[in-house]
Amino acid sequence: MGFTFHLMKTEKEAGARLGKIITARGEFETPAFIPVGSQATIKSMTSDDLIEIGVEIISNNSYHLYLRPGHRTIEQLGGLHRFMDWNRPILTDSGGYQIFSLGQLREISTDGVTFQSHIDGSRHFISPKIAIEIQRSLGADIIMCLDECIPYPVSYEYAQRSTALTTEWARQCKESLRGNGQALFGIVQGGTFEDLREKSARELRKIGFDGYAIGGLGVGESREVMCRMVSRTAPLLPQESPRYLMGLGKPEDLIDAVMGGVDLFDCVIPTRNARNGMLFTSSGKLVIKNARHATDERPVEEGCGCYTCRHHSRAYLRHLYMARETLALRLNTIHNLYYYVHLIKQLREAIRQDRLLDFCQKWQKKRKEKDDL
Amino acid sequence: MGFTFHLMKTEKEAGARLGKIITARGEFETPAFIPVGSQATIKSMTSDDLIEIGVEIISNNSYHLYLRPGHRTIEQLGGLHRFMDWNRPILTDSGGYQIFSLGQLREISTDGVTFQSHIDGSRHFISPKIAIEIQRSLGADIIMCLDECIPYPVSYEYAQRSTALTTEWARQCKESLRGNGQALFGIVQGGTFEDLREKSARELRKIGFDGYAIGGLGVGESREVMCRMVSRTAPLLPQESPRYLMGLGKPEDLIDAVMGGVDLFDCVIPTRNARNGMLFTSSGKLVIKNARHATDERPVEEGCGCYTCRHHSRAYLRHLYMARETLALRLNTIHNLYYYVHLIKQLREAIRQDRLLDFCQKWQKKRKEKDDL
Repeated sequence: MGFTFHLMKTEKEAGARLGKIITARGEFETPAFIPVGSQATIKSMTSDDLIEIGVEIISNNSYHLYLRPGHRTIEQLGGLHRFMDWNRPILTDSGGYQIFSLGQLREISTDGVTFQSHIDGSRHFISPKIAIEIQRSLGADIIMCLDECIPYPVSYEYAQRSTALTTEWARQCKESLRGNGQALFGIVQGGTFEDLREKSARELRKIGFDGYAIGGLGVGESREVMCRMVSRTAPLLPQESPRYLMGLGKPEDLIDAVMGGVDLFDCVIPTRNARNGMLFTSSGKLVIKNARHATDERPVEEGCGCYTCRHHSRAYLRHLYMARETLALRLNTIHNLYYYVHLIKQLREAIRQDRLLDFCQKWQKKRKEKDDL
Repeated sequence: MGFTFHLMKTEKEAGARLGKIITARGEFETPAFIPVGSQATIKSMTSDDLIEIGVEIISNNSYHLYLRPGHRTIEQLGGLHRFMDWNRPILTDSGGYQIFSLGQLREISTDGVTFQSHIDGSRHFISPKIAIEIQRSLGADIIMCLDECIPYPVSYEYAQRSTALTTEWARQCKESLRGNGQALFGIVQGGTFEDLREKSARELRKIGFDGYAIGGLGVGESREVMCRMVSRTAPLLPQESPRYLMGLGKPEDLIDAVMGGVDLFDCVIPTRNARNGMLFTSSGKLVIKNARHATDERPVEEGCGCYTCRHHSRAYLRHLYMARETLALRLNTIHNLYYYVHLIKQLREAIRQDRLLDFCQKWQKKRKEKDDL
């Protein structure tokens, strides 16, 4: 009933991998996209919506749930799966990213980090051990080590010190694990310095984790740097473990990272952009508020199998968006999540059938130069 | 394929009626509750959600749709049913109520009303003929005459003049009808003056409509006055036509009005209260934000068949509400609409089985004195 990763295939020309993750709450193939449920909900979605879309794993956020409603409350209510009525795998991040991006007045030491809540200003201390304890209470299938997400740009010295701290915290996280079936992933940091990334990966491998994440990217660096960091870091990670690129990215980023040998992705882009009226299609972005959609009877994408495209026109979606109706958030989110899940599914099929490069070339060609249709 | 009302039964002890309305887009039994879809959407609901709840007819708002996206746009897109993907009956109101409650700088004459849009301040003129024309473009199955909703309190003279105007407008609406299968309802006004209500009803009957609405209630008068107006007005309306109480009300108002012989209701209470975290149960109101629900694993109502109660605890709903998650709006709306639709269904069954008084007594008894559980 524990966590297992089967590497089923590595693509010949690129480094892309086809795998399968087995957890106590079901299995799913990789590459896989993980929609982000910060506060025990993928915004506007029920579990039934997610299942209809084809979502197989979701993430949740320890920082948010620790503050509200509290991990003890969720534990008392039978854990996160029961709390939010989601019976498939869940991944929780440690809260590190949010402590550093949302928390105020941070004080960092080898022991952990003290911060103020963004909700009410109350003071909190999280150590690696406490981060694991919170995630144990929540009961996710995959949990993450506490890390410091290094901002961009920073000096080599800052990145070096911070990466050493993340590695030390990873060691403490591993030691705090109770062996209750939760898979623990280590997080490679190192900023944009290749030697620090390499050192981080090497030391995490030595400690030994169920999976390895590439963290600290998509924080302001150029796309080129980001791609280089992914393509250099992924091969340093063990073949037999899943590789998880945290917090990224656009469809083209996912494709590049899959080619680079990454297995798991989580990102707020499909859901957040949906709420802002930006919809993904095979020919580029569609900005639903644009006047040209006002009388357009076509769905967002012809042939798309999502609920939104099967039932509603661009004209209706534009109307809902302009009238600030909450149904707009939901219908847009359904479409964008379906787009991501469907794209990743197509990538898996392409790897299975040895035609990934061909798929990627066709995918690029289909996109127009100008985004809004 | 036209509009038909069958009066199937009149309850012996009370004046309650069991009927059936047949339209080109399907039939449904009365008494029936009509959820309010102001802007071509019941806020946060898809059509599938509404069908699962058991909703058989919805309303839409001519004023809102005339201003945005425009009735011509909706007509061009195949009408309101197609625009919003709802294939069951729709009722549109004339916009009269919104012109008087939302519109600014109104000028009223026998010809119609000039007003400024609440969205952008633009000037508009709506005559009875234009109100019918807008509703013809929208293509609802049941449409309403333009009326002036009399505020409360007003002088007898104001109410008299206004009611005469509404009657004159009703006459013009009837004359503008093109006989395209849409059922037209007249609206009884008269404020809180029984003789004016009687005169209004008598004159509307003379003009002749497919159904008759009781308007201008729930605008500030006491519950006692409101009940008296309903119980005095309903018997003045033709037995063989449906009677529609506009804009009301709380569950107890619906029950009283059904006892008084009303067949149709629309009201924003279940949906608006849901968005404010107020949920209906058989034992009274439940305010979901209250701290006592924080660790309560029970559904909002034990045994309730709605999606929300089958899947989620009060603790989860409270968390979503406190975290301002949009899923809260949706799950709460599902529950409250189900409550209303289910209550009306129970009332129909009670009439069918000659036990309405008994049902109402038990229903009252079940409610606790103190509302929040």
